[in-house]
Amino acid sequence: MKILLVGGTGTIGKRIYWRLQNKHELVTVGTKSGDVHMDMTDPHSIEELFNSVGKIDALVVAAGGAPMASLKELTQEHFYEGIRSKMMGQINLALIGQRYINAGGSITLTSGILADDPIAMGVILSTVNGAVNGFVVGAAGELFRQGIRINVVSPGVVEDSMEAIGGYFPGHNPVPMERVVNAYVKSIEGVRTGEIIRVF
Amino acid sequence: MKILLVGGTGTIGKRIYWRLQNKHELVTVGTKSGDVHMDMTDPHSIEELFNSVGKIDALVVAAGGAPMASLKELTQEHFYEGIRSKMMGQINLALIGQRYINAGGSITLTSGILADDPIAMGVILSTVNGAVNGFVVGAAGELFRQGIRINVVSPGVVEDSMEAIGGYFPGHNPVPMERVVNAYVKSIEGVRTGEIIRVF
Repeated sequence: MKILLVGGTGTIGKRIYWRLQNKHELVTVGTKSGDVHMDMTDPHSIEELFNSVGKIDALVVAAGGAPMASLKELTQEHFYEGIRSKMMGQINLALIGQRYINAGGSITLTSGILADDPIAMGVILSTVNGAVNGFVVGAAGELFRQGIRINVVSPGVVEDSMEAIGGYFPGHNPVPMERVVNAYVKSIEGVRTGEIIRVF
Repeated sequence: MKILLVGGTGTIGKRIYWRLQNKHELVTVGTKSGDVHMDMTDPHSIEELFNSVGKIDALVVAAGGAPMASLKELTQEHFYEGIRSKMMGQINLALIGQRYINAGGSITLTSGILADDPIAMGVILSTVNGAVNGFVVGAAGELFRQGIRINVVSPGVVEDSMEAIGGYFPGHNPVPMERVVNAYVKSIEGVRTGEIIRVF
């Protein structure tokens, strides 16, 4: 299987890479790292990516961010930062990518626990994660007609991020990296579609 | 209770108005109808609205749209139409409105069934509804500290819309207007917060 792995050098992405590298043909994508460079906030950059990589069997996105700040201070500009990156970045990858994915292939996006189990300062991530979950639920039926599956992995705070951001997540159970990677493998190699695969 | 009802002349909004008019002081808001005019896609227009209306006890939004089209044809511009209106329109009303809502007051937004139970051509609404649900889940904890509750009503296709759009919703059960209005009343006059009140 030829797999395009966006965010392939990130906290979760590199673990996906390690697991899949011997079994599949992987192309890693990052803003400044990976085999191919791409700015996911720019649809032209996404078009260029697919033009250069060509047909694939699976698109996996483990990339995209959103600012954290308290609700009282937030303006729409903060929201649009998250919208352009984690929300529309992933959605644009799927919209443009659908033309490059072989029948029988799949798309796997990434949302996160905050859509269901919120924390202080996390409202933009709750919003953007909810949007990505909604997109996947909404897109699955029409992608099915093209022979393409789509799922989203919604991880809790992962073990490898606990030192950096664990303090924002009081009482949250760190998720073992192995379990998170399994969710992506299930989406890529399994049969389900339109699923929010919650790993928390 | 002084209630600002955005979309107060729409399909659902006018039913909310009829139910609450004798019990509360209602100010209806619409683009071109209602007591006060406002463009929910423009944060400046929202600021002006609250400047002219002043302190309130409840903000209710039953307004905002998003285009319907098949996934194959969609570009990010279609998504941004829905983002500016039903998603960021409602979120901006809440962000700006939080400064004008008395302690003990509430915010009630509107999403919809497509975040959970999708239809063909409905992926933007699935996405935007998911975002609004996520916003409410994410914002509730910080608004609680300000003494403000927030909920979102997620209606199925309502009885009064069946003739116009029922054909897009094969097999969906039309929701009686009475049940939808009850969800808004529960949010406004009840005690719960951070709730996605599904009415379908």
